[in-house]
Amino acid sequence: MDDKTFAAVVKDIDDHQKKYIERLRDAVAIPSVSGEPEHRKDVVRMMEYAKKHLESFGTKVELFEPGMQTLPNGKTIKLPPILFGVLGKDESKKTLLIYGHLDVQPAHKEDGWNTEPFHLTEKDGKLYGRGASDDKGPVMSWINALESLHRKKVPLPINIKFCLEGMEESGSKGLEEALTARKNTWLSDVDFTCICDTTRLGNKPNLQYGIRGMCYYYVEVSSAKQDLHSGDFGGVIYEPMRDLIWLLSQLSDVKGKIQIEGLDEMVRPVTDEELKLYDNIDFDVEAFKKFIAVPGLTAETKQEILMNRWRYPSLSVHGIEGAFSGAGPKTVIPSKVIGKFSLRIVPDMDPKKVDSLVVAHLDKLWKTRGSPNHYRTIISHNGKPWITDYHQPLYETAAKAIKRVYNVEPDYTREAGSIPITITFEELTGKNVILLPFGGFDDMAHSQNEKMNIEIYMNGCKMMAAFLTGLGSV
Amino acid sequence: MDDKTFAAVVKDIDDHQKKYIERLRDAVAIPSVSGEPEHRKDVVRMMEYAKKHLESFGTKVELFEPGMQTLPNGKTIKLPPILFGVLGKDESKKTLLIYGHLDVQPAHKEDGWNTEPFHLTEKDGKLYGRGASDDKGPVMSWINALESLHRKKVPLPINIKFCLEGMEESGSKGLEEALTARKNTWLSDVDFTCICDTTRLGNKPNLQYGIRGMCYYYVEVSSAKQDLHSGDFGGVIYEPMRDLIWLLSQLSDVKGKIQIEGLDEMVRPVTDEELKLYDNIDFDVEAFKKFIAVPGLTAETKQEILMNRWRYPSLSVHGIEGAFSGAGPKTVIPSKVIGKFSLRIVPDMDPKKVDSLVVAHLDKLWKTRGSPNHYRTIISHNGKPWITDYHQPLYETAAKAIKRVYNVEPDYTREAGSIPITITFEELTGKNVILLPFGGFDDMAHSQNEKMNIEIYMNGCKMMAAFLTGLGSV
Repeated sequence: MDDKTFAAVVKDIDDHQKKYIERLRDAVAIPSVSGEPEHRKDVVRMMEYAKKHLESFGTKVELFEPGMQTLPNGKTIKLPPILFGVLGKDESKKTLLIYGHLDVQPAHKEDGWNTEPFHLTEKDGKLYGRGASDDKGPVMSWINALESLHRKKVPLPINIKFCLEGMEESGSKGLEEALTARKNTWLSDVDFTCICDTTRLGNKPNLQYGIRGMCYYYVEVSSAKQDLHSGDFGGVIYEPMRDLIWLLSQLSDVKGKIQIEGLDEMVRPVTDEELKLYDNIDFDVEAFKKFIAVPGLTAETKQEILMNRWRYPSLSVHGIEGAFSGAGPKTVIPSKVIGKFSLRIVPDMDPKKVDSLVVAHLDKLWKTRGSPNHYRTIISHNGKPWITDYHQPLYETAAKAIKRVYNVEPDYTREAGSIPITITFEELTGKNVILLPFGGFDDMAHSQNEKMNIEIYMNGCKMMAAFLTGLGSV
Repeated sequence: MDDKTFAAVVKDIDDHQKKYIERLRDAVAIPSVSGEPEHRKDVVRMMEYAKKHLESFGTKVELFEPGMQTLPNGKTIKLPPILFGVLGKDESKKTLLIYGHLDVQPAHKEDGWNTEPFHLTEKDGKLYGRGASDDKGPVMSWINALESLHRKKVPLPINIKFCLEGMEESGSKGLEEALTARKNTWLSDVDFTCICDTTRLGNKPNLQYGIRGMCYYYVEVSSAKQDLHSGDFGGVIYEPMRDLIWLLSQLSDVKGKIQIEGLDEMVRPVTDEELKLYDNIDFDVEAFKKFIAVPGLTAETKQEILMNRWRYPSLSVHGIEGAFSGAGPKTVIPSKVIGKFSLRIVPDMDPKKVDSLVVAHLDKLWKTRGSPNHYRTIISHNGKPWITDYHQPLYETAAKAIKRVYNVEPDYTREAGSIPITITFEELTGKNVILLPFGGFDDMAHSQNEKMNIEIYMNGCKMMAAFLTGLGSV
């Protein structure tokens, strides 16, 4: 896209700011909460809303029904459809797959929202509403960018496929099966995949080249056949809570340094190139501390903090099932307690090898404990870490698009969390995937007062237009 | 009461077995669950039920309204009345105060009851139903005993006062204030108090001469202003759960040996007489282990086990508030966690001194921890331990009553749990209190399938008749 055409597209996007914000407002107004079955019909409505918009510029859309979901209460409910869209079928062109999701986390005004969560509200250049950032804002921006390109009659140099789901906030139920079934058909001509479901690290646009994986464990200690009263039995019982908290306390030190032998050796060494990357990354340590309001961090410098977040493993104890967890006092000796902890793992840690080291560590600890209670460590589930080389045309095209809109080089960062769909797409297509962050670092996805800055939303549409047209020369 | 009269009373009790069981059945059928506000009217109905029966043999009964209760949701609800009864006002006679309670713990068939919990069901000589043992069975037995004595025209050699409450399972709300207000009036002529709200240790009848007290603590550690995602922030946060489980793990060793300096020195030394007591106590270690179904106990011999249960302090960690406690996995870094633990304390441990040692121990641990998080130990509440000399006429009378019915000497034991009302009565009347256990050790009070053996229920009525008439010569 030459500069003149791009300028016209940019103008068209700006001219339609009101319309594009209304589009997001209409999307936010549909409370498509996948975790609340009473909103399942709204998730379906949201998928239909996206279908209508995608069709408006020629996308052929299938709403695929992936089947039923069994709820914790045993009832079954239909999963929302997965939207598969195809825009362009020119075999001489490469094909980009765009992934996004249209379901949202639950939100209630009384949780601490300053505005109605499902009524997009503008204040000080920010659009407050559930899903504004995660992930309706980015999905609407793809639609906005394509609509403007369509209106300005800019030919698309690539084919585009869309995979939009409505269960991302509830474990993406049904998605992997649906994609796997399409491996040799619908997915077979995909040349690259773009995932727009993360946010920036600082104020500067960035591209993400890695994510951490996760290994989740349960440690179960049990004793009596039922809970006992501490008045009657305190003093004679090997109390399972005593064993469990001791075991959990032996997993990491005060700073979070993991005490499990053999894990460190698996971490990919830091290269000089990576070290240099940190110098220029836009990340304000003090602003970060203030944002999460903690009295201290386990590292001091920008480089150490970022490395701890995304290039070293971490271990978190999440809680205990079976013990008293209510307010006030209760004098129970819980008979069966299950500690929950997980590790975030990084390249080149292999989840299966991590599992065996973790279980071996706990088994060894248990032997030294000398308690007659019943103990076992259960491997819950895991996901691999992911890393890619950002010296590749896909990333270079995204970097150019950012430069074109913002006139800055993007930061190359990793995502600290786990986005398993990245690896699913990479494995099923056998092609590269790019993580293209969209919203601001302070968008508060999943939390109260989620928002999208108008500036990011509008420039994001422009960046996407530049990216889509730039891919023609890859 | 001479042997002939006693034989007549025993026969009357046996002749009315069916009626007395029906009385308990009617009482159990009233679901007087004090902890469930929707059952408050049933608690009131239960108090009226007891009033009617006590009046049938001449008791003057006041149903005192102690006021309002504020529920956790902020609503207020009327407390059930406290029953104050007076049977006999002869100034030449001594006065016995009988305490009991008519409210019960919640019970639902689906919790694992084999029968309807509020329908007293006989099976193999046992009466299953909520409250059968705790404490409707004992209260009905007092009524049965007095009714038989009344029918056989046996003159009571003492005055009797009744204090029956309907909030015991919910912290006896309103009772202490009501009793304190009566210290110099209604309570001033009480010569001894009998509490029938505990069960036997083994199969043999016993008398209890001590109870443990309790000190309850909260340890709070907090960091960020809200819960964080372990994917985004794991590795850079001083996680409060890590600090808390470490602190809690430092309170006692695997066997429960308390690590807090200065506590042991406060425990009253064992005397030769106490040591000798244990030899004859009816307590089957193997049956006990089987009953609670634990894979091991912290002590081996009968003497050690009983000492650990009631004459040494113990420490139990009950749970953690603020951490994830549900089923399945969740990847949260809880921002504020509150550990709950308590100590059972024994003579001569002073709760205030215990409080200061516990707080000092944790404060010292925290200093060595080196975490920047916010920490504090909160003293929740405490209750003193209690011990009395069983070489006194009140206990001797009870022992004689047991001998008369069972032809055995009772065991002298202590109660492992805490019954604060014991100390309230002793302090307000300035007179001796006796703990007269009633039901079987396997009655499962507070649990599923609570029961009362018919043999114990019927012989208990006879033992109470012998005790009441025996007090004339004290």
